[in-house]
Amino acid sequence: MIANAYKSLLNELDAGKKAVMVTIMNDKGNDRNVSPEKILLTEENLRVYTSIDKLDTLIYQKAQYALETGNIQFIKEQDTITYLIEPYFPEPRLIVLGGGHIAKPLVELGARVGFLVTVIDDRPSFANKERFPDAEKVICESFEKCFNLFHINKSAYVVIVTRGHRHDMDCLRKALKYHAAYIGMIGSKRRVKSVKEQLLSEGYSQEQLNKVNAPIGLDIGAVTPDEIAISIIAQVISYRRLANTLSGSAASPKINWPELDRTVLEELSKGENDPKAVVTVASTKGSVPRKAGAKMLVWPYGKTLGSIGGGCSEGEIIHIARDVIRDGGHRVHSIDMTGEVAEEEGMVCGGVMEVLIESCDK
Amino acid sequence: MIANAYKSLLNELDAGKKAVMVTIMNDKGNDRNVSPEKILLTEENLRVYTSIDKLDTLIYQKAQYALETGNIQFIKEQDTITYLIEPYFPEPRLIVLGGGHIAKPLVELGARVGFLVTVIDDRPSFANKERFPDAEKVICESFEKCFNLFHINKSAYVVIVTRGHRHDMDCLRKALKYHAAYIGMIGSKRRVKSVKEQLLSEGYSQEQLNKVNAPIGLDIGAVTPDEIAISIIAQVISYRRLANTLSGSAASPKINWPELDRTVLEELSKGENDPKAVVTVASTKGSVPRKAGAKMLVWPYGKTLGSIGGGCSEGEIIHIARDVIRDGGHRVHSIDMTGEVAEEEGMVCGGVMEVLIESCDK
Repeated sequence: MIANAYKSLLNELDAGKKAVMVTIMNDKGNDRNVSPEKILLTEENLRVYTSIDKLDTLIYQKAQYALETGNIQFIKEQDTITYLIEPYFPEPRLIVLGGGHIAKPLVELGARVGFLVTVIDDRPSFANKERFPDAEKVICESFEKCFNLFHINKSAYVVIVTRGHRHDMDCLRKALKYHAAYIGMIGSKRRVKSVKEQLLSEGYSQEQLNKVNAPIGLDIGAVTPDEIAISIIAQVISYRRLANTLSGSAASPKINWPELDRTVLEELSKGENDPKAVVTVASTKGSVPRKAGAKMLVWPYGKTLGSIGGGCSEGEIIHIARDVIRDGGHRVHSIDMTGEVAEEEGMVCGGVMEVLIESCDK
Repeated sequence: MIANAYKSLLNELDAGKKAVMVTIMNDKGNDRNVSPEKILLTEENLRVYTSIDKLDTLIYQKAQYALETGNIQFIKEQDTITYLIEPYFPEPRLIVLGGGHIAKPLVELGARVGFLVTVIDDRPSFANKERFPDAEKVICESFEKCFNLFHINKSAYVVIVTRGHRHDMDCLRKALKYHAAYIGMIGSKRRVKSVKEQLLSEGYSQEQLNKVNAPIGLDIGAVTPDEIAISIIAQVISYRRLANTLSGSAASPKINWPELDRTVLEELSKGENDPKAVVTVASTKGSVPRKAGAKMLVWPYGKTLGSIGGGCSEGEIIHIARDVIRDGGHRVHSIDMTGEVAEEEGMVCGGVMEVLIESCDK
């Protein structure tokens, strides 16, 4: 049941964890009509190699690579087996502690670059949806109690910008208990130094404190709230996009965050017994509207969910998807995007997408 | 005539140059009613020390320091002479060559952090006010001819993000003829290397090319247009705010851009013969609504232009300004901002402003 694999996947993502879905398509004797198999590998599965049913070492290693880099791999082996190795990364969450003059532009910028934003303040006039229309969650609660109302996990980027140093320090103490992707705290060099000394004396380790970006943000000489928000979000982006980033150092390889179509995954996890096809962008080259990992569901009578980029190419794929629903199995199809479409978007050149279309009953 | 001094000041600013206005207030025998004198020092004046009428070496050096750091200085000497040394910096201008998918968020962010933005594209569908509502100027012209339609001077930050590498290179050739505050050009490392080699072979110097930020933007692993725009504007801010910045390196001292109230300066440059008072924030401490350099004009019957921050403090100052208009000369007044006002803005503590009120007939 592929629904179970997607259910497990969503559980991992909700816990802030990455995972890799391996799809195995066996084309024995040119029979493309065998349904693909799905195996979900969690971070725990991938930490140490253990012999897992049906996966040889090579595929296992490629899954580890996918987890690390975010790169989808589409592998055709000896014309009989095709593997799609898809890393899934949880949506990055920006937790903004404090709703003051820096939080205002920061929340807006964070939402804009794809973070689900939670903002917390203990003053009702600062913690409300009118002030933060782009936030997913606005929480009005004391900084003492609020940590029970959201989760800090490895997909959380925590920004501490309350109105007072005492609140900042309280929030930092709490945040250090979790393994966040990023922690930053505002404050002058002098103030930050004394906070760190205080926490060291309380038993926090130097290693823990080294992970705290304080003074927060890239050092661009920011003065105004807007500039400070830009310096913070730029640093948060560097933590998201670059592997092994510590305080924004930049010579590390880029992580390729795959597209994540949660509504499609949720639909697949339901396991409803209606014939449909899953369309996945398996590889791309050049300028394309959506990256590898983008997903769309197609039902026999033309209903769709999600998108692989719209336009005529999508119509073509929906056509093929109907054949796949009827015949079962899978197809691979290449789409050549015209340069013209891209030009309209201000891009230089078109690109090519390779698309996998799988039948899927439940 | 102080109007002439302000007229000269505006000329300097319009040419993209900084300048320093020195105000000399002589309180001979406790007579505060002598009108202050104004001497404008241009960048050229300040480059090499030459004996300038009425200014001793110390004041001259302080003016040089003001030009370099942006710090206003308010000096009371032996209870008889007071000097206000005010640096003026031209408004920073962001010139965005290319109106595509990166220009869209970049123009918005640039305007937001205080740049006057000009955007240029040769395609009418990309160069229009609807697409760039925050731009001061949108120019629809070929990249070849457009350089006659705006000025690149030391207050210009030039971003080259056209839709094609050939256009980018053409723009770079032109931009290199001027002394911009910043030049950045988009492109991959490989592409940028070949452009630089090409320009070297055409006779451009290595020194010139070293000043070009290419690949453009801070290296934060930016992927999406919004992220790329953030990486670019963060780099532009670092060039504006940090002294001696080359490619965003950050250990340099911060430049303190003074407030610039152009409408007030324009009014003062007219030299109209109506009694009024000029109010200047001469120094600040802690969180205050406007920084040193902020200016407001007050006429006898309550009309004002500009602002030193609003609120009750302004009412108090307007009251004193009327006395100054009546009596001539100048006053210095301290304003203690309450912590409460600041709290409403999400700031931690109030601050203190020292305000100079000068009478001014023409």
